[in-house]
Amino acid sequence: MDKLHKGWFTEFSPDDLERMNNEGSEESTKLLKSDGQEMGGAWPGQAFSLQAKKVLFHEKSIFQDVLVFESTTYGNVLVLDGIIQATERDEFSYQEMLAHLPLFAHPNPKKVLIIGGGDGGILREVLKHSEVEKVTMCEIDQMVIDVSKKYLPGMSCGFSDPKLDLYCGDGFEFLKNHKNEYDVIITDSSDPVGPAESLFGQSYYELLRDSLNETGILSSQGESAWLHLKLIQHLVQFNRRIFPTVAYAQTIVSTYPSGCMGYLVCSKSSRDVSVPARELTDDDVRGMKLRFYNSQVHRAAFVLPQFVKAALEEA
Amino acid sequence: MDKLHKGWFTEFSPDDLERMNNEGSEESTKLLKSDGQEMGGAWPGQAFSLQAKKVLFHEKSIFQDVLVFESTTYGNVLVLDGIIQATERDEFSYQEMLAHLPLFAHPNPKKVLIIGGGDGGILREVLKHSEVEKVTMCEIDQMVIDVSKKYLPGMSCGFSDPKLDLYCGDGFEFLKNHKNEYDVIITDSSDPVGPAESLFGQSYYELLRDSLNETGILSSQGESAWLHLKLIQHLVQFNRRIFPTVAYAQTIVSTYPSGCMGYLVCSKSSRDVSVPARELTDDDVRGMKLRFYNSQVHRAAFVLPQFVKAALEEA
Repeated sequence: MDKLHKGWFTEFSPDDLERMNNEGSEESTKLLKSDGQEMGGAWPGQAFSLQAKKVLFHEKSIFQDVLVFESTTYGNVLVLDGIIQATERDEFSYQEMLAHLPLFAHPNPKKVLIIGGGDGGILREVLKHSEVEKVTMCEIDQMVIDVSKKYLPGMSCGFSDPKLDLYCGDGFEFLKNHKNEYDVIITDSSDPVGPAESLFGQSYYELLRDSLNETGILSSQGESAWLHLKLIQHLVQFNRRIFPTVAYAQTIVSTYPSGCMGYLVCSKSSRDVSVPARELTDDDVRGMKLRFYNSQVHRAAFVLPQFVKAALEEA
Repeated sequence: MDKLHKGWFTEFSPDDLERMNNEGSEESTKLLKSDGQEMGGAWPGQAFSLQAKKVLFHEKSIFQDVLVFESTTYGNVLVLDGIIQATERDEFSYQEMLAHLPLFAHPNPKKVLIIGGGDGGILREVLKHSEVEKVTMCEIDQMVIDVSKKYLPGMSCGFSDPKLDLYCGDGFEFLKNHKNEYDVIITDSSDPVGPAESLFGQSYYELLRDSLNETGILSSQGESAWLHLKLIQHLVQFNRRIFPTVAYAQTIVSTYPSGCMGYLVCSKSSRDVSVPARELTDDDVRGMKLRFYNSQVHRAAFVLPQFVKAALEEA
């Protein structure tokens, strides 16, 4: 099976792809990692395909393989290192939930930092909050920003906003120089195999804590409970030592492996982040052009299936 | 792309598969249908693959193509007409939600009817309710029951239960002879393309109403809001004319197309089916060996993403 075969793009688990490409060789397989611990393969034994109309862009940046293709039924699709990051058809659910869970859990978010998020989707959602006075984004890969501006105009529409300060560099390094500064920090990363691996370790979360101000709230891409329960347990466990409030939410994102995406939400205060600090009326929801998030969805996202609930209670 | 290619089973949308198999021919494509209305292709332009270790069973029954294979990471997998029905790894979420939403919405379900459900998963869950005195199952395809008994022992464990009356036949015909009889009816069907199409039409739901007693509650497989919003709107719309209470829930089932599954829940009384009539303690949940459902999950499943909520309000 090829990644692009007879007009279909196929997303394999990175470890399966490595095995298929190096059949017979003794090269080590790609594994999810956090704090140097091996957290298993990504999603071995399963694959997801989208029918491709046309490859729009395909180059290697300094950090990763960057592909954009036009699909037959999901609009334009951004792929990094063989993994689908966003499709125009369903990206709104991921962007809205990762952005609005911490932003609406906060009573008055003025200064927001986004780590990663080079496609602009999270930025677009953050800018919907009139309370926000300044958004800083730190994305490591300029090529992701450039291709998103060109091929994902619905996601990258916020890059020209005067409230934005954009840095191209390593989020880990950026945080070291910004202490006690942000109301909300959102980490919009790819999976912990490749350039984003350091964003899943304890020392990264300690830096996040120090960069948040005293009532600050963070959210991070938290993988899928169907696939990575061990990694999620690990994230929850060490964050309970760092933050007074650690919560995990999940929702449906149709083109992510297993159709589900988790969100780790931590707060430096004891505020219950599963309850919005600001409730939205139906009119507010329409005014903000929200397609996935509303205040009821906020609460429900923290209600976990029994197997996930039990696993995190044990963590 | 073949359905079984280099050790991978691939589930295509039935319309895409038909197009690929009949390239150049003028045969009509397979579409989802309800009440004779065409509701679009199934999930065109996307496909899902599982790595297969071994084909355990592959025959054509009178009604459909029946395949069971052992996968590398999802246990044994039941496939009907090319569509994954259940994998041992994640089947519990679908079975528990389709069964327990109506059963726990009912204060005292004694007589339960299952239409379809030949793999036995729903039956297993229904039998966990000590209130249930009699379960009747009407499955059209004996071959599905036989292969499930052999290859899916964890799902088919209830077939020997003395509370069970098992009929092999058409659910539509069965209902005509059973009036005002059941507390709960569960329709566990495949998609509305092929043998299950008649189970998605208005006249089927009128038969269900007449077979339920005066406080009866039904649940039906309700497809995915990411893929079939038009079909779901149609189902909700005509059922509002048939039942005082019509509600729609959804949860995550990782191996179904788009990772999400909907449940249509209707009641002949005005009871709010989104609130369990019987609340479970943590001990109850453990005692019933529930891995997905708990009372909080029950309520949260009826909280819909904004785009689904808005579409069903308009329906």
